[in-house]
This record gives sequence, C-alpha cells and structure tokens, in this order.
Amino acid sequence: MSTHTARLAALRDQLTRDRLDGFVVPLTDEHMSEYVGAYAQRLAWLTGFQGSAGTAVVLPAEAAIFTDGRYTLQVREQVSGDDWQFVGVPETSVAGWLGDHAEDGARIGYDPWLHTRAWVAEAEQALAARRATLVAVDTNPVDAVWPDRPAPSDATLSVQDDANAGRRSAEKRADVADWLAEQKADAVVLSALDSIAWLLNVRGGDVDRTPVALAYTVVNADGTADLFVAPEKMTHAVAQHLGNAVRVHDRAAFALTLGQFAGKRIAVDPALSVAAIPQAIEAGGGTVLALRDPTIIPKATKNPAEIAGHRAASIRDGAALTRFLRWVSIEAPKGGQTELSAAAKLNDFRLETGVLKDLSFDAISATGPHGAIPHYHVTEESNAPIEPGQLYLIDSGGQYADGTTDVTRVVPIGAPTQEMRDRFTRVLKGHIALATACFPSGTTGQQLDALARLPLWQAGLDFAHGTGHGVGSYLSVHEGPARIAKPSYPGGGPQEPLRAGMILSNEPGYYKADDYGIRIENLLLVVERDIPGGEATMLAFETLTLAPIDRDLIDPALLTTDELSWLNAYHARVDATIGPVLEGDNRRWLTSRCSPIA
Amino acid sequence: MSTHTARLAALRDQLTRDRLDGFVVPLTDEHMSEYVGAYAQRLAWLTGFQGSAGTAVVLPAEAAIFTDGRYTLQVREQVSGDDWQFVGVPETSVAGWLGDHAEDGARIGYDPWLHTRAWVAEAEQALAARRATLVAVDTNPVDAVWPDRPAPSDATLSVQDDANAGRRSAEKRADVADWLAEQKADAVVLSALDSIAWLLNVRGGDVDRTPVALAYTVVNADGTADLFVAPEKMTHAVAQHLGNAVRVHDRAAFALTLGQFAGKRIAVDPALSVAAIPQAIEAGGGTVLALRDPTIIPKATKNPAEIAGHRAASIRDGAALTRFLRWVSIEAPKGGQTELSAAAKLNDFRLETGVLKDLSFDAISATGPHGAIPHYHVTEESNAPIEPGQLYLIDSGGQYADGTTDVTRVVPIGAPTQEMRDRFTRVLKGHIALATACFPSGTTGQQLDALARLPLWQAGLDFAHGTGHGVGSYLSVHEGPARIAKPSYPGGGPQEPLRAGMILSNEPGYYKADDYGIRIENLLLVVERDIPGGEATMLAFETLTLAPIDRDLIDPALLTTDELSWLNAYHARVDATIGPVLEGDNRRWLTSRCSPIA
Repeated sequence: MSTHTARLAALRDQLTRDRLDGFVVPLTDEHMSEYVGAYAQRLAWLTGFQGSAGTAVVLPAEAAIFTDGRYTLQVREQVSGDDWQFVGVPETSVAGWLGDHAEDGARIGYDPWLHTRAWVAEAEQALAARRATLVAVDTNPVDAVWPDRPAPSDATLSVQDDANAGRRSAEKRADVADWLAEQKADAVVLSALDSIAWLLNVRGGDVDRTPVALAYTVVNADGTADLFVAPEKMTHAVAQHLGNAVRVHDRAAFALTLGQFAGKRIAVDPALSVAAIPQAIEAGGGTVLALRDPTIIPKATKNPAEIAGHRAASIRDGAALTRFLRWVSIEAPKGGQTELSAAAKLNDFRLETGVLKDLSFDAISATGPHGAIPHYHVTEESNAPIEPGQLYLIDSGGQYADGTTDVTRVVPIGAPTQEMRDRFTRVLKGHIALATACFPSGTTGQQLDALARLPLWQAGLDFAHGTGHGVGSYLSVHEGPARIAKPSYPGGGPQEPLRAGMILSNEPGYYKADDYGIRIENLLLVVERDIPGGEATMLAFETLTLAPIDRDLIDPALLTTDELSWLNAYHARVDATIGPVLEGDNRRWLTSRCSPIA
Repeated sequence: MSTHTARLAALRDQLTRDRLDGFVVPLTDEHMSEYVGAYAQRLAWLTGFQGSAGTAVVLPAEAAIFTDGRYTLQVREQVSGDDWQFVGVPETSVAGWLGDHAEDGARIGYDPWLHTRAWVAEAEQALAARRATLVAVDTNPVDAVWPDRPAPSDATLSVQDDANAGRRSAEKRADVADWLAEQKADAVVLSALDSIAWLLNVRGGDVDRTPVALAYTVVNADGTADLFVAPEKMTHAVAQHLGNAVRVHDRAAFALTLGQFAGKRIAVDPALSVAAIPQAIEAGGGTVLALRDPTIIPKATKNPAEIAGHRAASIRDGAALTRFLRWVSIEAPKGGQTELSAAAKLNDFRLETGVLKDLSFDAISATGPHGAIPHYHVTEESNAPIEPGQLYLIDSGGQYADGTTDVTRVVPIGAPTQEMRDRFTRVLKGHIALATACFPSGTTGQQLDALARLPLWQAGLDFAHGTGHGVGSYLSVHEGPARIAKPSYPGGGPQEPLRAGMILSNEPGYYKADDYGIRIENLLLVVERDIPGGEATMLAFETLTLAPIDRDLIDPALLTTDELSWLNAYHARVDATIGPVLEGDNRRWLTSRCSPIA
C-alpha cells in the first residue's frame, strides 16, 4: 500500500472513531491565508498534491480532490487516480458534489477554523437535500492521524520601523477606532495575517516568503488592541514597540475571548475570517457585523514613506536583476547553466544588496517549454539546461524592509525567431498600453484589463492569467483587494476600484505550449494626475520597476511612435537610475541595452 | 390649485376610499417595457414629469418622486416642489425610502402588474421593519381618478415576412420547445413585447417608435403557442400566418389562464415579468421556474437574413442621412433653420425612401448648448435656431421592415474652434478603437468600454452615458441583453458576453455644459474573425452604419496612421456604397466629403 493510500485509510479509520461519514480537507489555515505554513499542509500530506489551491473530500466509499484549471494535469501526476476522483472547480463546487454524493442522513465533518461562513452555509444547504448535516469538529481528524505533523513555526516577531511604515501603529489604530464609531461597533476582529502585521507595524517569519506571524488581533473602540500570538514569538523590542495600548495574549486564548463579547457589536470580515470566529462570538452572546476588514484599503493605498521605500527597493532590486541579466547573456550561451543554477545566481545578486530579507516568492526560472507554464516551479527533478534557441523567462522578487518587488524578464538564448519577436512585441504593446493608461476615479481593473490584451487579441492570441495583482509593502507579494483581470477572475478583485497609492503588477504574457513563454512584468503605482484643460483629476500609473527589457526580442516595426517613445524613455530612466548603482562592465552593458531604438 | 396638485389630491382621496396608506406609481407597463403607451403614462399624468424613467410614491402627508442622475434638473423644472420631494436613485431606493417614511403598520398599495417580483420582495422587507405591509391592488387607483385616460392603442398586428425574419415562427418555437425539454418545463410565459413579436414573426403599433403589440404568449412543450391579444388587433392575414399551432385568445383571458397550470412547471423570466404573473401561476398550483426568456439570445444574435436586412437598411438610411447632412451644410449657415425644422427635413428624407415604417425614436436634433444634453428632446418651447459657431448634433434612426437604424452625426455651423476639433477627434479615436477591436469569445461590453473612452480620459475628460446598446431587427432600438458600458451601468448589460450576430451601437461622446455636444454613433455587427496564425476564432465588429463623419471637425494631427487609415477606408466604403444611391450634387458632395484625409 502506497504512503498516500495508507494515509487515506488512516483518516477513514479516524472518521469512524469520530462517528463522521465524511470530512472536508481544504488548503488554507486559520487565517484564510493563500500561502500556509507546513503545519497546515494537510491536503498535500493526505493526497500528495503540491499545487497552491485545492480541496479534498473523503467519504466512506469514495474520495475526491477538487482543483481549478491550472492544476488539471498536475493533480493527475501527483495524486493516485485509484484512490481519488479528480473534480474540476468551479464547474463543480465542493458543496454541490457533497450534496450529490453524501449518503442520506450522513454526518459530514469540517474544521470550522478552515472554512468561511459562506462556505458552511452553502454546504449545509447542499447537504440538506440529503437530510445530511455538516458537523464542526473540535480537533481536526487529519491531525490525529498525522504523527510527524510539523509544529507551527516559532519565528519571533520583529518591528517594522516607523521610517519604513510611514505611520505609527497608534495612528492606524485611531483610524480603525474612528471607523468602529461610524459603524457603531465595539470592536473588530482581524484575522488576516498581513492586516495584523500592517496595523501593528510588526513582521514575522511564520509563512515562507511572506513576513507575517500567526496571530489574531482585536481592535477596540478606544484604539487599543489585543494581540493573540504564541508567547515565544515576543521579544523585548517588540513588546516595547507595541506599548501599553496593545495587550499581548497567548494565541490559545483567542477562541475563549471571542465568547466574551456578550451584548457587544463585533465587526468580522466574512471573506477573510473562518467560520469559527463569528460562531464563537454569537455563541457568547455578541452580535457579528459582517464588514470588510477596515485595514484593507489603508494597507493597499501606500503612504508617502511606503512609496519612497518601493522606489528605493526598485532601484536596488533592479540593479541586482540587471547584473543577473548581463550574467545570463554571457554565461547561458556558453552552455552548462540550468534553471536552478540561474535562480541561485540571481539569489546571490539579490543577497549582495546586503539588505535582502527574503525572496518574495520562489523564482520562476523557466527555459524553453517550461516558460509556457505560467506558474512553473523548478525542482531538482524538473531542472532543465538553458540552451541556445530558447527563451529564458525569469519571474522573481525580493522582500526588503522598504518594499516588496516582483519583476519578470525574458532573455533569448541566441537569436530569437521572428515569431518570438512578434509575440514579445505584442506583449510589450499591451504592457505599454496599461502602463500609459489614464482613467477616472472609480475605474476598476476589469475595465483596464483589455488594454493589455488587445495587441494579442488582434493576432488571435491571449494569455490565461490575470494581468495584474496588488503588491504589499514588505508584506504579501499578492495583496488585495484590487486586481487587473477579466471580470470572470474569481474573488472580486477585478471589481475593486483602483485608488491612488495602490501598487499593482503589469504582467501580460504569451505562452506557446511545449515551446516557450513570454511575460513582461513591472510594478505600477497608481497616481493622481491633473491634466491641463481636463475636467477632473484622473488616475494614472507610474512604473516602479526598473530593469532593461530585452531589445533583441523587440520588433520596432510593430511599435507605434508613441510606444517607441515610451520604450526609449523607460530605458533612459532605467539607465539614469540603475546605472549609477552599477560599475564598470555592468554599467556599460546596461547603457548599451538602454540606448534608444529607432 | 394647479392641475397636478388636484390630481395628487384626487389620488389621495381614492387611496382613502381603497383603505390604503400609500401607493407606488412606477413608469412601466404590464410588460416591464422601457417605452410605454399613453394609457400607461400614469407617472406623467400624476406629476407632470416627462422623463423616460422614474417612480412616484404617495403617502398621506408626503409624496416623493424618484429619478436618476439624468433627470436631476428636469424633474425640478417639470414637477412641483410644493407637492413632491425629489429623491435621487440609486443613492436612495424606493423600497428603502418606503421603509423610512411609511407609518407604523401602514398598508402601502402597489399594482402587481407594474412591478417585478424582486421589487415586491425588496419593498416588503423594507416595510416589515415598520410592521407595514405591501398590498396588491386589483384595480390601479390612479386609473380610478384619471377620467380621460387614453384607451390602449387599437393598432392591428402585421406579419413580419419570412424573407426579413430569416426564420419561420414554427422553427423558432421548436427551438423554444427543445429548451423547455432541457429545463424539464411544461411551458414558458413570454411577456416582453419584442420577444413575442420576434417569436411569432409579427409586428404591432401599440408603442410609439417600437413596432410591437400589447400581448402575452405562452409557448408549450409541443412547440404550439397561446397568444393573448385584444381581438380587434387580429387580421385575417395575421391569423393565416400564425396558423393552427398558435391559438389566439383575448388578452383579458391571460390572467385566468395563469391560474390553470396546476401541477405544471412554468418558466418565467423574473427580470422581464411583472409580479402578478408568477403570483397567479403559484396561486393556481403551478411551479414557477425563474429562467431567462429563451428568445433573448436568438433574438439578439441576428441570422443571415436579418444581417442582410440591416446592411440594406443601413445603405438606404445612410443615403437619406447624407442628403440631410448636405442640406444642413448649405441651409444652416444661411440662417432661419431650427432644431424642429431640421428634424422635419430629415424626416422628409427618410420618408422619401418610400419604405420607412416609423422613426426608431424621436430624433435628438440639438444645436449649441442643447447638444450637451445627451437625451435632449426638442419641443416647440425648447426649439432653438441653428446658428453660426455652433455644433449641430443629430441623433436619429428609422424603422424599416428589414432593419432598425440609429446614427449620430455632428455638423459645425461655420468654422469650429480648435477645442471642438480636439474633442471631436478624441471621440473619433475612441469610436475607431472600439470599431477595430478584436476579442475572444466570452468578452463582455464592460471589458471593451474603456477603449472608447481612453482618448478622452487621457485629456482628463469622459462622457456620462454608456458607449453602446443593443439594437433590434425592426424591433426596439434599445434591445437587450448586451451593452457596452462601465460595469456600474444598471441592469446587467455590461456583464453579458458579446456574441456573433449581435448588433450594438458605438457612440462615444463629449459634452461641454452650456456650450456644445459631440457624439459619433455607428451600429456595429459582432462577427467571427479567423486570423491567420491565431490560436482561436476571435470576435470583431463590422460597422454597419454608412454616412460621412464631418471632416472639418477632425484634426488629423491627433490621429495615428492606423486611425487615419480606418477613417479613409470607412469614407471610401461610404462613398462606394451610398454614392450609387445618390445623384447629381448629392453624389458629388458625398464624394468630396469622403475623399482621403492625409
């Protein structure tokens, strides 16, 4: 019996002991995080699935794993079809499948610390048709049969200093208190890890690549806060920074505290909070107000210090990337380099800045056909040599105390084909169209997304991912709430109005399966723009990311005069800004790569 | 006491007799029509308001009229502020206002033949907080006190012949029957007037400018239909055309029939049907399935005969408009012409085609400052002289048996200012961007809308209306379900995927209050486009409307090479297509106005 077959059998035995007729295993944590610590990787442990999104349902006689279109192939490679049915979402919802497959009268377990209340309501309704019920478990049955489950990280908290944060935590909490007064609420429960880190100006080390700590926070109407965090994470410096207005409690006390809000009105964000939170508040006699987390907009709209930090980080990171791009241009054609060796070299260049805190995600170092997989993750097994005739795609970023970066460049190894140049230039045209867009207040990402796609659409092409995601300030490289994408993108991001101070990626691409991938990604800052003769202040973008775009992949004949002007002005800015940070050959190489294209 | 004050008092007396504590007066008919017959103009009769959208609520001590931003000024001019409060929607909803203003325990009347079920549910919920109830009336109390209320039109039905319709009614009904089988439904109730006209290949004369008849239709699982229509509307030809598979009943029998579906599953479109319909079905023991009217998509996606008809109508109508544009260019500078005289002249040119059935809407004939009012309606009182230095805007269309047209052109009277040329050229750039767009299947109007606005946005400008609406085939000039507009446009149109065969307007504009208005409107046909080297069949637009765009308003320096090419190619096509329909001076004038711009 294979490892995963044995694990599934063990879970079924545990369900029998727990008198459950099924159990749902999502891929998230107690904070509805997108990226989760090893301790919460229950789905991977149970099924072998290594993707970043999915859900498993285990019934007595059948089991199913639910993944979206990105993972249709991967799930079949990593998970045994003997044990698991493969189900595609959103075509089939987990709740809908449960309603169809649960036994009449079944008791289906779920961990209320791993699902939103909306999911619980949907599943309950689907099961009701079977007279089956959804049962909240006290302890997760997966954990009961996972003997070597990793402990949660014991990384300590650190202080995000005021110079980088731009505003003191007390000011931020005072704004939340004003918001509570407007909402006639007594307190708000924050459970999103980046909300807590932003509000308290602290950072953590509990999630790979994202500097957040596992914690909960309650902000009260007087602007004080209660922070629930494992005691070993606290340091003297953090305690001093938090001061008396932030009371620190053991994370274990959080659930109990939720039950002590009798008669109070407590705000909870239904999209970011697990069902256990409002359930516990209501069980204790409190009233739950379903309201958006009040830190979402202030966190997303960067203040002047955060903007200055992002600009500084962009120069530093752009210089490291430029050194890497020159290295690739020299070393790759010689042969002997691989996706892993290149990623390691880039890591070295970033480390040489001396201030890198972490990568902002595992670099997508993808050559040739691997470039056509937008979320390719290089491993020892997949590692491919970088070879002549290929396009080498590098999507990477760094976490710095003053900003989080995310940038993609493509380098041709040897001479690219005319098709590659055509596709690259179309992607560049879309990138420029978005970068130069100007739009009224209230405009959403779904309204701008087509600008980045139109040059591909005109050629009968498209790309199957969003055009841009929000980016945090030394926080998550995927930050809500806004997104530039088609309206059908799940989760509401494309419907969020863009606001001055938001930072979003601009990353159109083109992917030719089994051949090559192209993506040009810079970060954009949303800025206000007063236009002479205009009737309203408009919004526009300032490109933050600074690094040369490979000129050998550009067909200038496909560019309009305005597009060529943008490109030359961007490269002039890259040279003027990054150049002084470089020396000798690196500097000369950059200047030559940034010279005007006629 | 003024007329409208007396009418309000009379209605209040009637409400007392009816033991009601309030009544809601919407502007619609028993078919949720956008445009309604004179008999249903209760809002205008009661309040004096002449706009095309609004609602009144009458309570014992107060009364309010609800209008959207288009009518903020107009409602205050036409309706007495002594009798009526002015309330803006959607900021305040009618239901929300009722919840705030109804007396505790009040009985608020509504006519169930004039509201959707969703509205009823919303109002009931809002009133519940006051322990007030919403009461369906049997007869509308407005009608009881409106002694000279017009009778419904007695226009007869006519046959839309197969050559223009492109498909026989029996084929269309067979498709509906297939759909009913898929939905496991026994029948569908159609109440939208254009759905009925389209399905049965008949037209009517009950609504100004829209060739539809007041009727209901039930389509059965065997493909037969029951048509409920006033008997005097039937003609021998129509009866023969409908045949035995369409049973004709008196319209008065419709409500009774709805009560006879015990045990049946009946599809009803919740957005297009008044509450009385599902209420009556359920009261009779039937089950209501809330499903979209199955004729919406086939009606909107024109078949080859309808497309050929639209092309023919566009040439005919374009020739009439061209004669008019030359007439304006000659006569307006001489002085003595007015908005009304010009509209009458254009009507003459359309009538001279010999096949005009009706206008497709009252022409917007607007000069100078009136042009800045997008929905300006010229009357004897407002009629303004067309004078040098003005821009004259003409938005008009014709109803022909083979197609419905809608076109806007702007003519400068004398030399336009540089600002006018700048604005006109920006509007033209947006128009061209949309006309030349190419996009994948599934794309919605809200994704393309920004293309038409971007050149204005870049100058700090915008326009406050949608970019495009659907157009029927000798049916409504505003046809659902698709629309090209910002996502916030009410009603769901911008979220509807565009499909091959749909016809939509392309009408960006610019409006300078108290000065001038600009709009360039052509109709677009959505077509499939196979692009060499492309990976998927894309959708694109074919411009149907043919008429010169005023060259004196274009600043070629603002156009890109591609935009100039589009303009010159469009004008060459206009000259080649419309030219042969014209003679002598008209033809020579057209050719000169269509010559290439360098």
